[in-house]
Amino acid sequence: MKVLVLGGDGYLGWPTTASFASRGDEVIVADNYLRRVLAQQTDSEALIETPLLPERARLFEQRSGHNITVEIGDLTEYSFVERLIRDYQPDTIIHYAEQPSAPYSLMSVDASRLTLNNNLNVTLNVVLAMVDHAPKCHLIKLGTMGEYGTPNIDIEEGWIDIEHKGRSDRFLFPRAAGSLYHTTKVLDTDLIWFYVRTFDLRVTDLMQGPVYGLTSPELDGHLDLLPSFHYDDIFGTAVNRFLVQAVAGIPLTVYGGGGQTRGYLNLIDTLACVKLAADNPAAERELRILNQFTETFSVLELASHIVEAGKLVGINVEVKSIKNPRREAEEHYYNPTNSGLVELGLDPTLISPERLAAMLEIVITHKDRIDPDRIMPRVKWN
Amino acid sequence: MKVLVLGGDGYLGWPTTASFASRGDEVIVADNYLRRVLAQQTDSEALIETPLLPERARLFEQRSGHNITVEIGDLTEYSFVERLIRDYQPDTIIHYAEQPSAPYSLMSVDASRLTLNNNLNVTLNVVLAMVDHAPKCHLIKLGTMGEYGTPNIDIEEGWIDIEHKGRSDRFLFPRAAGSLYHTTKVLDTDLIWFYVRTFDLRVTDLMQGPVYGLTSPELDGHLDLLPSFHYDDIFGTAVNRFLVQAVAGIPLTVYGGGGQTRGYLNLIDTLACVKLAADNPAAERELRILNQFTETFSVLELASHIVEAGKLVGINVEVKSIKNPRREAEEHYYNPTNSGLVELGLDPTLISPERLAAMLEIVITHKDRIDPDRIMPRVKWN
Repeated sequence: MKVLVLGGDGYLGWPTTASFASRGDEVIVADNYLRRVLAQQTDSEALIETPLLPERARLFEQRSGHNITVEIGDLTEYSFVERLIRDYQPDTIIHYAEQPSAPYSLMSVDASRLTLNNNLNVTLNVVLAMVDHAPKCHLIKLGTMGEYGTPNIDIEEGWIDIEHKGRSDRFLFPRAAGSLYHTTKVLDTDLIWFYVRTFDLRVTDLMQGPVYGLTSPELDGHLDLLPSFHYDDIFGTAVNRFLVQAVAGIPLTVYGGGGQTRGYLNLIDTLACVKLAADNPAAERELRILNQFTETFSVLELASHIVEAGKLVGINVEVKSIKNPRREAEEHYYNPTNSGLVELGLDPTLISPERLAAMLEIVITHKDRIDPDRIMPRVKWN
Repeated sequence: MKVLVLGGDGYLGWPTTASFASRGDEVIVADNYLRRVLAQQTDSEALIETPLLPERARLFEQRSGHNITVEIGDLTEYSFVERLIRDYQPDTIIHYAEQPSAPYSLMSVDASRLTLNNNLNVTLNVVLAMVDHAPKCHLIKLGTMGEYGTPNIDIEEGWIDIEHKGRSDRFLFPRAAGSLYHTTKVLDTDLIWFYVRTFDLRVTDLMQGPVYGLTSPELDGHLDLLPSFHYDDIFGTAVNRFLVQAVAGIPLTVYGGGGQTRGYLNLIDTLACVKLAADNPAAERELRILNQFTETFSVLELASHIVEAGKLVGINVEVKSIKNPRREAEEHYYNPTNSGLVELGLDPTLISPERLAAMLEIVITHKDRIDPDRIMPRVKWN
């Protein structure tokens, strides 16, 4: 299979690239290092330094024997996206190329505009180039469970049958996201759905929960091949931030009451899910939506998992509630389904004190790189 | 009341400006003539030439005694929007400043990108500037009935209560629009709803059907004050196109089966609705959605109205089905409600052979300006 990974320098993009290349797929990876630049500008650099893509690809090939083609460019420019899709004719496009931080998206007027314009323009360029040059190609788009928000009804996989006044129809599941970043993914889905039903494209939209983890089987043991692991308040996700706080001796910062419940998954499962989606493509004129998480827990439950893991490696972890910088429900109903990927064959790697402890061990070896100033929330929208 | 009209050069923008100014409101109007430029570029200029905004404002003041402040600038630039909202501190912002053509939005890659970026950036700039400089201001945003598409259930006013597996919640009514232009309005609503609920803004989103008409009471009898009336396949709306075809002796071009049903309204009612919305603002943290049309009919029914009107002015009007250039259902259920504006006091001006005949009389006086090459669809997405 020929796979084009957009946003392949990122936390998920790089291990995804390595994962497809390792099994013998032909992989082309594109990125313009936007997240690196934004991380530098906001003093939010990753815990472990990561080489640039050509160097990573070279190191990866040295160790695995598998080649990766690197294309550096700005995917908000149509001519670049068009060239990639027209000339490479991929079977599968995996689209991660978005500004991924909720706090960043609400940091300033410029950051809000950048987030909207980057995310929507890349998505539009991809579907426009598919319509013109690769209408049979399968697009796998990274959405987010955050698109749904926290509704008072069960969350289905992207679609819902509504009965209303004696008649019925099937619709996109209603969505109301908690940040501008998450809202751009709502807009992506709306936009993609228009192109799917009007131009018969085939798309899988993966509604992913917060991911955690520092490595994947293909990258294990190679420090300079690890994904970009962020632990700061802007680019770090909840579990990863807590792991670093535990190691740094900073009490885990629970936002408000800590009852916020989300669906989480291990980085290893992200890779498994994306491969399952690629190997079982959506049909023509199908927008297939899959909820991509393996288990749900509240922030307080997550914190107690980390406390348990800390004990295994001899760290005493404290938990502290701080004023919630976000506008979100701290107690809410949350019952999302995730049967689609399980039916495709996903065998989840669930959270456990042992698995978290193994991650703590890796973080411990980088303890001197931790900057405590990057932990407390620097952006508020409450 | 101080009113800021964004996109005030347009078919609706200019009569809205005149309508508020005529009743003594202080009106500031902003535009960059984008629609004029696009109309020139696509050989789709209006039937009646319209002076530029400073000249229109001067002529209007001469005749009515009411001043209008004109600001020419690009509303996709945040600094311009910020200056307008911060310095004028309007009570009401009326946001019409979008690329308004469905065929244009699907004409080329560049046209698609322009439509998405223009429409979304103006909307984002407006809400960002409101958050920072005028959080109590009431935004009236022009949406479209086209956001809903043609679902198989009754269309409510923007919101729907969903019962699902024994639980219930209230959501934005599901939407699936028929063009990229209409989809940008879906995205606008999603985007605005995020800012309303997160930053306590007050917004009315008017889901308007196709508007028809050549003039309004405040502009009547002044040829150089009339709205920009488009009759071409790109910027013309259905009724207006048919009126011109009737006068030009071109059979009315019904797309496909002609069973496409929509909610229509007279330009006079658009003005009444916007004033009702302005005089009865939404509450803080309310996204009030009102369906803005007065009656529904199919394209075939519309065509027969025009045939009847033709008889009154001695024109024999023919009707001809042509291959539908759009991807849309030609037979469908359609039952939208519109009680909100009626409850606020709207007294509809319904379509009638007499009213259409009066419009035909105006078109007849401009018969020599009609270019028949602008009638047949030049853009296809089927």
